Amino acid sequence: MSSQPDHPALLIPGPIEFDDEVLQAMSHFSESHVGQPFVNCFGESLTMLRKLFQTTDPASQPFVISGSGTLGWDQVAANLSEPGDDVLVLHTGYFADSFADCFETYGVKATQLKAPIGDRPQLPEVEKALKEKKYKLLTVTHTDTSTGVLSEIKALSELVQRVSPETLLIVDGVCSVGCEEIRFDDWKIDAVITASQKAIGCPAGLSIVMASGRAIETFKARKTRPNSYFGSWKNWLPIMQNYEAKKPSYFATPSPQLVRALHTTLTQITSRPLEERFKAHRDASQKVKKAIADLGLKQLATKPENQANGMTAVYLPEGMTPPQVLPSLLKKGVIFAGGLHKEIATKYVRFGHMGVSVTDPKRDDIDRAIVALKEGLAEAGYKAP
Amino acid sequence: MSSQPDHPALLIPGPIEFDDEVLQAMSHFSESHVGQPFVNCFGESLTMLRKLFQTTDPASQPFVISGSGTLGWDQVAANLSEPGDDVLVLHTGYFADSFADCFETYGVKATQLKAPIGDRPQLPEVEKALKEKKYKLLTVTHTDTSTGVLSEIKALSELVQRVSPETLLIVDGVCSVGCEEIRFDDWKIDAVITASQKAIGCPAGLSIVMASGRAIETFKARKTRPNSYFGSWKNWLPIMQNYEAKKPSYFATPSPQLVRALHTTLTQITSRPLEERFKAHRDASQKVKKAIADLGLKQLATKPENQANGMTAVYLPEGMTPPQVLPSLLKKGVIFAGGLHKEIATKYVRFGHMGVSVTDPKRDDIDRAIVALKEGLAEAGYKAP
Repeated sequence: MSSQPDHPALLIPGPIEFDDEVLQAMSHFSESHVGQPFVNCFGESLTMLRKLFQTTDPASQPFVISGSGTLGWDQVAANLSEPGDDVLVLHTGYFADSFADCFETYGVKATQLKAPIGDRPQLPEVEKALKEKKYKLLTVTHTDTSTGVLSEIKALSELVQRVSPETLLIVDGVCSVGCEEIRFDDWKIDAVITASQKAIGCPAGLSIVMASGRAIETFKARKTRPNSYFGSWKNWLPIMQNYEAKKPSYFATPSPQLVRALHTTLTQITSRPLEERFKAHRDASQKVKKAIADLGLKQLATKPENQANGMTAVYLPEGMTPPQVLPSLLKKGVIFAGGLHKEIATKYVRFGHMGVSVTDPKRDDIDRAIVALKEGLAEAGYKAP
Repeated sequence: MSSQPDHPALLIPGPIEFDDEVLQAMSHFSESHVGQPFVNCFGESLTMLRKLFQTTDPASQPFVISGSGTLGWDQVAANLSEPGDDVLVLHTGYFADSFADCFETYGVKATQLKAPIGDRPQLPEVEKALKEKKYKLLTVTHTDTSTGVLSEIKALSELVQRVSPETLLIVDGVCSVGCEEIRFDDWKIDAVITASQKAIGCPAGLSIVMASGRAIETFKARKTRPNSYFGSWKNWLPIMQNYEAKKPSYFATPSPQLVRALHTTLTQITSRPLEERFKAHRDASQKVKKAIADLGLKQLATKPENQANGMTAVYLPEGMTPPQVLPSLLKKGVIFAGGLHKEIATKYVRFGHMGVSVTDPKRDDIDRAIVALKEGLAEAGYKAP
């Protein structure tokens, strides 16, 4: 039995539904951020993140900082690139525009490589771009929360290794970490940025980053000082290393309650094989995508290989808008998100299927959502084929 | 009866002990950051902050962003000053050094006006400094968490108005908002930065700022773009205005659980006269300071008028260090903090007396702490006079 009161199932692409035990950890009594019990909890959380990212290289470095996922962009831009550097931003929707804007804020020149809506830049285009100019970083949104488009990290990494091995590979994994496979070491990724409130299954408020040894070396070799203060690894690196060594340390006060919740969900996640978790997400995603197709609806993501496993962006029937559908879904106890990609925001909705909603066999969130969508569309006058 | 399990009373200068209802709000079921129930909650929290800061000027602007209190420094440095600007930082301890470092990160020239440990810069010195150079901002730490020194905001403001009225007055109120009187409008303050986990009584993880209409105008008149992305008011100002107007809006995902907890504590705080709250803190502070004096111990803060009401920094008896005292206090169910001011960190401890520990008549935290301190010192071999 859930200890949470009756509430609509939150099936947006984050925040997601949370496990009871995780929410209970949020109410942990107040404790000192430099007291040993909390320091141990923080340190263990960092170590468990290594497992989640499948990195065993001791040079890899996790960071957990109070903030939104967006703060991860600042961390990358202010620590791994320097003013005047060129970076290549692969564009699959809303978030590449914002990441590029973040780079520009820090004086870094961002070149965007855009794909049509629902697709991702193709490898030959990326290869061409990498050959035309020397880029310090290449960034890719693993799952684009605005379109449900999935990028191919492994193949991309192989391409970068072949064509421009000095370029650091930066993955925006806000909507993928915890539901899509990420083999940090094997795929030679230099940094993944993410947030707590999606497939990691912890309430919002933590910016989470995994950096490679090479990324840390690049950071240490900077000619200029990091040009963020709160996001500076100069300030945070010794703190994270001390926490993981179970030594009290202080730069800015972390959130003990959020870190307790993170520890709880990471304990749950790492207690089972990761492959099982990814498969549960793939299976749920297939079920959703089949139901969408059966309803005669189209996804934004155009091809099976570029469709994310943690969410689905669905075009509504011609002429129908989210405000005609979402309120009736809410009445049926299900919350979806509206569109986010500026050019087509009024034409589609987003269905998140991550975390306990797909991994907890006692929950029927996904099935209920599929039924609600079917009924909601019918009530709005749509006749499925 | 508290619903919190037995635990040592956390009497450090933040995080503090939290009310049961506030901690329960941290376990709120997951909800959408753009759903109306949460948008209303966020908007009401912003409006209650106006009350807490005693500002009725509609041009004043509250900000609540996921992050540590430190992020408030970035917000000030990146939004209110521009590269090359001069700012004057009044130094009362550890935090002025860090705030100055933050300014330098953003290309702003920080001049520090230092006082001896336990004191604050005197008004004639500040006047002299303001007359020597044109400063864009003057910053002051209201309660310096490292020393327990209280600054005089009202008199300082009158001085700035008289000598350098174009200079914006910036108050670091991380350890003062909620326990020291702050009359934002009357004292013509341009920005107060604070955090959730001290006298506001909400778990750590929120950076809270109140900006004056003049500060917002200064921000809007910038010649350069804000040089932080996550901390940029260009990104956050429309969001905060929308939230307060109860309109959904998105830049980066806030933490619904933390904002629910903030809403709960602000509802409690604003339901009673603020003067009563400040008096409770003054009374508890007097009790603590008298007990310290009776024990024959000295405070870092040298004079009654520069002693904070939310915390007390106490020199240990000659030759005694925090590790000789703090563990025995912990055994007695009380947690104090060690020293933080680099030059004398091993010579003193810090006792926080804020929030429910002083306002909730059902709690005896302060009395227990005084007894524990007395006994702990005796066990360590100290003979009180």
